[in-house]
Amino acid sequence: MTQTSPVGRPLRPRGKLLQEDTRRHHRSLLLQQLFREGPASRADLARTTGLTRVTVSDLVGELVSGGLVEELGAPAQSRVGKPPTLVGLNADSTHVVGIDLSATDRMTGAVVNLAGTVRARHELPLDGAVGAAAVALVHRLATELIAMTDRPVLGVGVGSPGVVDAAGTVIDAPNLAWTDTPLAASLADALGLPVFVANDANTAVLGEHTFGASGDGGLMVLRVGTGVGAGLILEGSLLHGHLGAAGEIGHVVVDPSGDRCACGRSGCLETILAVPHLRRRLAGHDPVEVLTRVGEQLGAALAPVVGTLNLHELVLSGPQELLDGPLREAADRSIRERTMPVSSAGLVVRTSELGEDVVLVGAAVLVLAGQLGVS
Amino acid sequence: MTQTSPVGRPLRPRGKLLQEDTRRHHRSLLLQQLFREGPASRADLARTTGLTRVTVSDLVGELVSGGLVEELGAPAQSRVGKPPTLVGLNADSTHVVGIDLSATDRMTGAVVNLAGTVRARHELPLDGAVGAAAVALVHRLATELIAMTDRPVLGVGVGSPGVVDAAGTVIDAPNLAWTDTPLAASLADALGLPVFVANDANTAVLGEHTFGASGDGGLMVLRVGTGVGAGLILEGSLLHGHLGAAGEIGHVVVDPSGDRCACGRSGCLETILAVPHLRRRLAGHDPVEVLTRVGEQLGAALAPVVGTLNLHELVLSGPQELLDGPLREAADRSIRERTMPVSSAGLVVRTSELGEDVVLVGAAVLVLAGQLGVS
Ligand SMILES: [Zn+2]
Ligand SMILES: [Zn+2]
Repeated sequence: MTQTSPVGRPLRPRGKLLQEDTRRHHRSLLLQQLFREGPASRADLARTTGLTRVTVSDLVGELVSGGLVEELGAPAQSRVGKPPTLVGLNADSTHVVGIDLSATDRMTGAVVNLAGTVRARHELPLDGAVGAAAVALVHRLATELIAMTDRPVLGVGVGSPGVVDAAGTVIDAPNLAWTDTPLAASLADALGLPVFVANDANTAVLGEHTFGASGDGGLMVLRVGTGVGAGLILEGSLLHGHLGAAGEIGHVVVDPSGDRCACGRSGCLETILAVPHLRRRLAGHDPVEVLTRVGEQLGAALAPVVGTLNLHELVLSGPQELLDGPLREAADRSIRERTMPVSSAGLVVRTSELGEDVVLVGAAVLVLAGQLGVS
Repeated sequence: MTQTSPVGRPLRPRGKLLQEDTRRHHRSLLLQQLFREGPASRADLARTTGLTRVTVSDLVGELVSGGLVEELGAPAQSRVGKPPTLVGLNADSTHVVGIDLSATDRMTGAVVNLAGTVRARHELPLDGAVGAAAVALVHRLATELIAMTDRPVLGVGVGSPGVVDAAGTVIDAPNLAWTDTPLAASLADALGLPVFVANDANTAVLGEHTFGASGDGGLMVLRVGTGVGAGLILEGSLLHGHLGAAGEIGHVVVDPSGDRCACGRSGCLETILAVPHLRRRLAGHDPVEVLTRVGEQLGAALAPVVGTLNLHELVLSGPQELLDGPLREAADRSIRERTMPVSSAGLVVRTSELGEDVVLVGAAVLVLAGQLGVS
């Protein structure tokens, strides 16, 4: 009998594997519950996850031994009978290293705990490093960050510019002159730790979704820096797109009669909104007028997206002094003028709650999701 | 001990319920496999679903007794040992009624089998019916369709214009003068059958995804009729949006200096693309020129959506003689000119494989998904 599925894919033997998968899945369910809802009794955990009490007690015991989870004693409000003991995540039992490669002049990093709190920061100037030298700089930054914590390190997360595949290979990042650069693999080899690398905009939206003040509706984080790109979480999941290129909005033409762009087209969103272009436009002009006009153009470009997706939150992430004022207000107004009330009624247009840390914290989320199954 | 979760929601007792849920889930897994991949042996089903052989045999036995699944004998190519018996969906064991309310002059319906094949058709002229009279007309159409098949009817699906909530209540459909009209509930009461109602564009995208020739990437079906609306399936799931209004792109302003729209704005996509507006523009003009210009405007409006979502397929659904020629070609070209190659490389812009049946067939999919867990 052949071991192939109806579509021809070979199938691996099940059984033992299924048991391990199941145990890992149950462990993730418990951690996810503690992560999202905070401390709970074992009985609460059994009810909310649908697992048996025996399974919960067994897994909680394992997590307490490992240090990830701690016994918190009884809640103060218990009055009747034997109060149940609460267990909760031990936020500093293990740390995560998050690295942000989206700035053009430096690489920034942080030691982040399980609650998304930055415990230490470190950065290295880029000094024009590209190619292998830039990879070596990431290695050095990661090594120095790991040395900054006395806790076990769960893994390293990296938000990188450019297109990044599921294995953490940077397919194309022109600013760093990286092409098919296996960043996750080389870091994992050198550090002996799990490493997760993703596009910086996707990393940002994971950070905002997990630790920013965002709701459960559709979330789009528009990163405005040297370039412009977006990350989206729709119906609770990161949007990858057909060929993994979701969020590539920087070189969408929004004004065919506009400035020539580095990509060869004219009037791409980047020629209007990217920070170097914005600063050039502002030089010697009324800033309110310039920022308002840019906000209106941004709103016109995003109105079809907001209408199509019925977004809940549109988050502008980048230099606050440029984004959080006339530009954001004009974009907000323009989107509302250009879409139906049913599309814009629930919409919030704001800047990131995490400020400049959004990619760092998102990089930590890559590790929490990959290693613990929580997000 | 209080039966509340950490967030205060009362919890229902589990156990028996969990067993029923599990059994239903396993049954859906089997049906989904047979639905998507075609006939299979019980051993194949156990391998591909991860269920035990005992569970598979038990559930297949139940499905064969019920008639949904049939024994097909041994496959012709088996040569060695005792050939396994294949089982497959019995496509005409039960029928589904699908109804399309998106036309302005009539209500159309069909009897559809489990393979998405239309077995019978029926329609009633609208004759200006609105409000309760329009509801009565849907009741009559459904009743007459049910009488057209001698098979058991699994349920009734309806694609309705306007905003429809998860319970099948039409919140707002101006053309039919329906406001908070509990269409699913009233039909279910009258017919004694499960009834599912959804927005017509969402219904269309489910039909195209399930029975059209679509791939697994992001799919957007743009419905062009009296109005314009879209349905989207992203990462394999129907997009609902924050307040259930995903796809509301008809009244997105694409040309602020354009024609006045019924909604009070100027230059909404509908003023350019909706069929009555298109036909008016065509009267007395060079059709290629008019359709090309409209296609370019449509492409400009959709470029930010395509770039943001990295769509795989953009399907235009409506009158083929208007959509499938210069208009589609110009939209396709305009989107490619206005987005990066990484966004448009995998993009297909086409008309629906299901033609005018896309909502009818999608309405049947609502029932298959709701009653059998397949899609
Ligand atoms: Zn460009
Ligand atoms: Zn309008």
